[in-house]
Amino acid sequence: MKNIDVCLTPDLLHLHNIDNTIVIVTDIFRATSCMVTGFAYGVKAIIPVETVEECQALQAKGFIAAAERNAQKVDGFELDNSPFSYMDEKLIGEKIAMTTTNGTYSISKAKSSAVKVLVGAFLNLNAIVEYLKTQPYDVLVLCAGWKGRTNLEDTLFAGALVDAVQNEYFVAEDSAIMSMRLYQQAKDDMLGYLANSSHIRRLQRLGINKDISYCLQRDLYDVVPVLRGNELVNM
Amino acid sequence: MKNIDVCLTPDLLHLHNIDNTIVIVTDIFRATSCMVTGFAYGVKAIIPVETVEECQALQAKGFIAAAERNAQKVDGFELDNSPFSYMDEKLIGEKIAMTTTNGTYSISKAKSSAVKVLVGAFLNLNAIVEYLKTQPYDVLVLCAGWKGRTNLEDTLFAGALVDAVQNEYFVAEDSAIMSMRLYQQAKDDMLGYLANSSHIRRLQRLGINKDISYCLQRDLYDVVPVLRGNELVNM
Repeated sequence: MKNIDVCLTPDLLHLHNIDNTIVIVTDIFRATSCMVTGFAYGVKAIIPVETVEECQALQAKGFIAAAERNAQKVDGFELDNSPFSYMDEKLIGEKIAMTTTNGTYSISKAKSSAVKVLVGAFLNLNAIVEYLKTQPYDVLVLCAGWKGRTNLEDTLFAGALVDAVQNEYFVAEDSAIMSMRLYQQAKDDMLGYLANSSHIRRLQRLGINKDISYCLQRDLYDVVPVLRGNELVNM
Repeated sequence: MKNIDVCLTPDLLHLHNIDNTIVIVTDIFRATSCMVTGFAYGVKAIIPVETVEECQALQAKGFIAAAERNAQKVDGFELDNSPFSYMDEKLIGEKIAMTTTNGTYSISKAKSSAVKVLVGAFLNLNAIVEYLKTQPYDVLVLCAGWKGRTNLEDTLFAGALVDAVQNEYFVAEDSAIMSMRLYQQAKDDMLGYLANSSHIRRLQRLGINKDISYCLQRDLYDVVPVLRGNELVNM
């Protein structure tokens, strides 16, 4: 039987052997929710990069560029980190270079050894589940967290995914069990459940309640972003 | 207002500034449950050491020595890692040298910069809570986990402690919120809640169900082990 496991922050990825594993990176507020939205609206590719400087270099080569640090847009870039900014005709068929505080960092950490790196969000949860059914590999959900710390919303996504596939995968490790139980506790009112979480408070100070509600919607899009070389594309 | 936070494994301790903080180390199955039991039964001091070799060196100097690796006693030592072994007249007034897979390692990691390092278990939870009321410092619960990974039982203890002091402390971070919510979900049947956890399965293979039930009992002992120099003593 295949295994599913959860890594609660990229700072714990060293504990996992991912050689034979599909890694699903999630950063619910808001990097992976933006990526999924972008692909659903026709973006051709997203190049996740670690630094603002790399993002500027790609911008100079004609990429549309998106850079977020500490939940805010970096000056001089076209796109911010709101999923609504990715619902734009101008982006159809385009390539986007993107760097964010946590999400793109996690993708970089996973890509060296995983079989495949996918991007997950509540918005494409069922599409991920359906894809995994066709795959023989173990699965690790990598929560992007916040600067190395675990966060509630990414853990809830991990738990939702474990919950959805628990009959097909062996759920051996406590981090996966904990994530699933938190999700089961939260699922009927995720917004209420998250009301006191650290990142919600951080985002509410920035006035983006609309983004929060949007990112918690489930199965809006049938897209599965996958890393091919250095580019994320829709599978 | 004072802050309370939870570090889910010693591999994440680098994310926390503990200069002005009391760190409460917990390793429910079974190091800190053993320590608390030992003090309740009259042990004078426990010297936590990181390696089996250090433990042997102290044994040669006349200490009673306890060494556990991978949940089993290391050959050549007097004490195993069962709390029932600490209920022994021979230990009254004695000093014990102890090394365990996770618990003593966590104590070593915390002691360099914390204001104080305490040892917590369900067995002395209320004694810890009462002591904290007298202290002006922030609190960090450090879960020993299992070889760097998070585990359910230590997280539940952290959650129980956060739950008990939540009116006196600010609970800002998601790891503390997650721990508290898991505890709230588990508290009416902790044994059942833990039934599928990784460490319970590991321990059950070793046939120590009695230890498991014992370690989940709350407030049996009014002891607060604290690190003074290199020795844990009952405060």
